[in-house]
Amino acid sequence: MKPAARLYVEAPLAPGAGVALTEGQAHYLRSVLRLEPGRRVLLFNGRDGEWLADLGELRKSGGVAVAVSQRRAQAPEPDLWLLFAPIKGDRIDTIAEKATELGAARLQPVMTRHTVVTRVNVERLQARAIEAAEQCERLTVPEIVEPRSLREALQGWPDGRRLFACAEAGPARPMAEVLAVGPRNAPSGLLVGPEGGFSPDELDLLRELAFVTAVGLGPRLLRADTAAIAALALWQALGGDGDRRPPQRIEN
Amino acid sequence: MKPAARLYVEAPLAPGAGVALTEGQAHYLRSVLRLEPGRRVLLFNGRDGEWLADLGELRKSGGVAVAVSQRRAQAPEPDLWLLFAPIKGDRIDTIAEKATELGAARLQPVMTRHTVVTRVNVERLQARAIEAAEQCERLTVPEIVEPRSLREALQGWPDGRRLFACAEAGPARPMAEVLAVGPRNAPSGLLVGPEGGFSPDELDLLRELAFVTAVGLGPRLLRADTAAIAALALWQALGGDGDRRPPQRIEN
Repeated sequence: MKPAARLYVEAPLAPGAGVALTEGQAHYLRSVLRLEPGRRVLLFNGRDGEWLADLGELRKSGGVAVAVSQRRAQAPEPDLWLLFAPIKGDRIDTIAEKATELGAARLQPVMTRHTVVTRVNVERLQARAIEAAEQCERLTVPEIVEPRSLREALQGWPDGRRLFACAEAGPARPMAEVLAVGPRNAPSGLLVGPEGGFSPDELDLLRELAFVTAVGLGPRLLRADTAAIAALALWQALGGDGDRRPPQRIEN
Repeated sequence: MKPAARLYVEAPLAPGAGVALTEGQAHYLRSVLRLEPGRRVLLFNGRDGEWLADLGELRKSGGVAVAVSQRRAQAPEPDLWLLFAPIKGDRIDTIAEKATELGAARLQPVMTRHTVVTRVNVERLQARAIEAAEQCERLTVPEIVEPRSLREALQGWPDGRRLFACAEAGPARPMAEVLAVGPRNAPSGLLVGPEGGFSPDELDLLRELAFVTAVGLGPRLLRADTAAIAALALWQALGGDGDRRPPQRIEN
């Protein structure tokens, strides 16, 4: 029978390992999906691959599942960071969800001059990312880090990682043209500004840095969430693992 | 002074032309943006380019603006259709918004075997598309057409237009690889299935048709809205106008 759910857990996964399920997971399995003990589910923890597991007891306060066998081995994933200026409302949740589906490894909110939002609920974004990772069949969950200023993020930028800054104003090369000539799966970052765009001094700063390449996403002005999704999709297609197919579905 | 708003209108635009504004537009200008008569706005109608215009009287029941001078000439836009299986809730609105920002010319809801949604509010999607066109500085508004079955849509498919079908199951070539060798700005369609994917017989039908190319968007399972946005972004970057820059911002 097809596994009835796919859950991210923190515990190690090994044959026979009992894995504690949180109150939220137990509630979801029992009251939303209406699953009984004995049903088969999938578990992953970001380190040990994906496991078939059998549900044990589900109580109000939590539950347990027992790992049976590994279905997919852990495999390297693209080393892609998304730096984005936080935006209002649902749109920031959209970024967390879509960035997860599109294989970002890390999400870094950055505060820029025209950023209107002052508080970022990192826990809420992390929950959304976990949900999206469970759904899209990733073997990892992206890390959502605490907001930093754009300047700080750039000052601490690691050697050997390029940063593609999506810029609507000023000179920039088409992102597809830039990515077409780069190596695949190189450590990379994408930077997307707020609805108001980057300020002129931010654009100047970005253009001074050797690891930054200003890239364009076409002639229309994209909302911040659209720009983030478009840039992620392009990077994966041209610079990441977009040449791979979903596992387990090739023969359907 | 920077234009205070950008509005889609249906009337012809020419020097001195008086353009009637709808009740909704007048309300937005007067009560949301708090604009007074005399303020400068931008108008476009999908045929005559983009015009600077002066606001006249704004009443509860409507208003008027007078076109002053053309700021941008009408220009050809990519001839890209998005065919998508309607999905629930906000996500279908997201598709309308993002497809507009990413330059789709036509949105065609298609009913597939695994489509759960039975009714599509075309008017609501059209309103969302108009709003997105105003915001993203397009010179047109995409046409949202009435839902059809997938089979009907394929039977009436026009000569000379390719259709890229995003398929998670079965054989498919990476979308970037397919688009890298095609001509730019050729009449095209993108097809995105529902959350449950295409059925095996739908996949068989698609693979029999000479104008269809099955394409893949990488190893993760994308939600239907994410797949639509990713496919649109890729097509524009590699097959559309993604090599162009936003107008009026080059010198910022």
